[in-house]
Amino acid sequence: MASPLAVNWEEELLTEGLSERARRAGAVYTGPGAGGVTQQRTQIELTGGVPDPVCLPIDDLIVASESVLRRDGHDALQYGGAQGFKGLRDWLADHWTKIEGMPLTAENFSLTGGSAHALANVCETLLDAGDTVIAEGPSFPGSLRTIRSLGATIEQATLDADGLDVDALEGQLADLDRRGVRPKLLYTIPTYHNPTGATMRLDRRHRLIELCQRYGVVILEDDAYGEIGFEGAPPPSLYALARGRGVIKIGTFSKILATGLRVGWVQASRPVIDALVAMRFDMGTSPLVLRTIARYAEDGRLDDHIRDLCEFYGRKRDLMENELRERCASFLTWSSPAGGFFLWLKLNPNVDTERLVAASQKEGVAFVMGRRFFAQPRDDDPNYIRLAYSNVSEDKIPEGIRRLGRALEAAARPE
Amino acid sequence: MASPLAVNWEEELLTEGLSERARRAGAVYTGPGAGGVTQQRTQIELTGGVPDPVCLPIDDLIVASESVLRRDGHDALQYGGAQGFKGLRDWLADHWTKIEGMPLTAENFSLTGGSAHALANVCETLLDAGDTVIAEGPSFPGSLRTIRSLGATIEQATLDADGLDVDALEGQLADLDRRGVRPKLLYTIPTYHNPTGATMRLDRRHRLIELCQRYGVVILEDDAYGEIGFEGAPPPSLYALARGRGVIKIGTFSKILATGLRVGWVQASRPVIDALVAMRFDMGTSPLVLRTIARYAEDGRLDDHIRDLCEFYGRKRDLMENELRERCASFLTWSSPAGGFFLWLKLNPNVDTERLVAASQKEGVAFVMGRRFFAQPRDDDPNYIRLAYSNVSEDKIPEGIRRLGRALEAAARPE
Repeated sequence: MASPLAVNWEEELLTEGLSERARRAGAVYTGPGAGGVTQQRTQIELTGGVPDPVCLPIDDLIVASESVLRRDGHDALQYGGAQGFKGLRDWLADHWTKIEGMPLTAENFSLTGGSAHALANVCETLLDAGDTVIAEGPSFPGSLRTIRSLGATIEQATLDADGLDVDALEGQLADLDRRGVRPKLLYTIPTYHNPTGATMRLDRRHRLIELCQRYGVVILEDDAYGEIGFEGAPPPSLYALARGRGVIKIGTFSKILATGLRVGWVQASRPVIDALVAMRFDMGTSPLVLRTIARYAEDGRLDDHIRDLCEFYGRKRDLMENELRERCASFLTWSSPAGGFFLWLKLNPNVDTERLVAASQKEGVAFVMGRRFFAQPRDDDPNYIRLAYSNVSEDKIPEGIRRLGRALEAAARPE
Repeated sequence: MASPLAVNWEEELLTEGLSERARRAGAVYTGPGAGGVTQQRTQIELTGGVPDPVCLPIDDLIVASESVLRRDGHDALQYGGAQGFKGLRDWLADHWTKIEGMPLTAENFSLTGGSAHALANVCETLLDAGDTVIAEGPSFPGSLRTIRSLGATIEQATLDADGLDVDALEGQLADLDRRGVRPKLLYTIPTYHNPTGATMRLDRRHRLIELCQRYGVVILEDDAYGEIGFEGAPPPSLYALARGRGVIKIGTFSKILATGLRVGWVQASRPVIDALVAMRFDMGTSPLVLRTIARYAEDGRLDDHIRDLCEFYGRKRDLMENELRERCASFLTWSSPAGGFFLWLKLNPNVDTERLVAASQKEGVAFVMGRRFFAQPRDDDPNYIRLAYSNVSEDKIPEGIRRLGRALEAAARPE
């Protein structure tokens, strides 16, 4: 018999009517008057993996956007196709052909709403509930959430200062194989990892590709930070080493330009790109924004900007590490990252994390607790915190680390 | 036993490894060298439901975008949250409070990548494989594709010049109920329908709401064209008539401003909006674009622009209808739309559609065949074609219809 629309229809819809994916993603009924969580505004935030506002090339983007609207306004303001503006894909092809040392064309790229959307597009195209995905632990929680929302099981791979532990992975793959499980994807951030800052060593990259090819696992390479290096070029990408075979790579303009543009990309062989484009339900990313980036990037301006960023963020990393060595060294250890936005600090066993959280709030310094980055946190894991040196202004770094130092002192158990 | 990465790994991945959703969406392996379909460039296109380029307020958008970058560049170029820039949601709340005659706030809106993305967001949040959705036949194929991609079954509701046939719907709902099927959603475009141009009569709107409430079906109201009216205000929206109860409404800046901005929205009660925002995997739509629209819209400029558009497109509709009456009246019939972008022409039985396609290509005029708009096309359906007067320039309309007239003559079977 028909059941009429309930008086509390939203509650019914959002408790009984949510899709499985929505349940897994954490969409819930919050009640008619539910408020958001009130965020305490701390004074110094070492949280966000976003560019320093002083690096945003605002004047250049004003010029680029006006030029696009004036010269190509009609095209910029109409549908531009699901794969995205070819001019920007041409720029990417050119740019990455040089870096990867292999020929790439506009057909190897599709443009997305940031790399989060790129990852969602890949996962929606390839994953069904019950599939298995291998991902590093720790890893970027946003990606883990998307993978989980599709009902895939995440098998956590371990990681050290040289990137994914390929010996452990070999055992894990053999074990999965014995259980009849063939993972669909291996998701990795090999270069300037989020949150650890680690860069996978070249020999491990070769070995990882060999293992994934042996077990028939496609690699999903997240290269969000790969261009922000402080010590020369990182090892070649997995994509380059495998000549694109069995590797899908995602990238973004968020870190090298601005997160607010919401533009990223997928780099893959053409049949894969075609399938990903066929899975778009949004009629493409804004041609106005894509053309503005292309106009800005032409004539080498974005390349110059990236060079400046590497110098700038390298200096901020050094500054934060110096302060940490001076003020916090007795409470934690870390490996220095060769690029990216983050320091991943392992707390000594004498630091009480609950007291650290309270003391940091009191001191006015914010960072992210390490547990958030693990798909399968274990109680006997060491405790970590992630500091971002990217977004905080240079002049606040010393005071931020002083506050962290005081908070650590307050949170340390007597020996 | 492990099966290593195949030599033709893309083929294996894209034939055996695609997600169910990707299969349903039509993502397929196209081969290493597969090319796209070559489109014949016809001279006069009456195909696209997109604004006339002369209506794009390019100069105003240059001013707005420069002002946003100069005054609020840091905020515009950084993450702005998944629900989207509050200033634009405030504008929408204000704008729709006046139209709907009920109080709405920024919490009733979330901003998306066009209404296609808004619809995908709603459907991903609510639909699982096996669910049933009622949709008008004909309807917008992009929406039907998204619904189908999720594995939902579409039950086709019939439609006439006064909108959805609620008598037939009542029988359909009773029949589904007898079979134990409770549809999750009823998807409708009640105002200036795509493709038919029909506007649902007020009494039918009341009746539709009553039926959906009785059978516990949530209404998904697509209002892409509702502001482009030529004969005064349309009847109140389903959302307004139901005071938001059991109705989720989607809208877009594509038709009233520009498709290339890729910005639309969902309007719903707050718990529904919260759940939809929790289902975003893309970290939000570009704050730069959202703020540019808000800056442009403030001070009533977008309201004025919409008023101008109504007059402009009304004139184009009149022009196209006059030409049709003069040159094509013996081959087809239609109901005049009170708004929107389209004419939906029912071909007389003496017109051979295959010959019409061939003759139109020869004459150099393009339009969309009606069958594309039906979820369940039936062989005994009458044949329709959809003409868009929105995108074609005014001065080409007479020649376009002359060509259509000649094509119809060539395609007519002797009586």
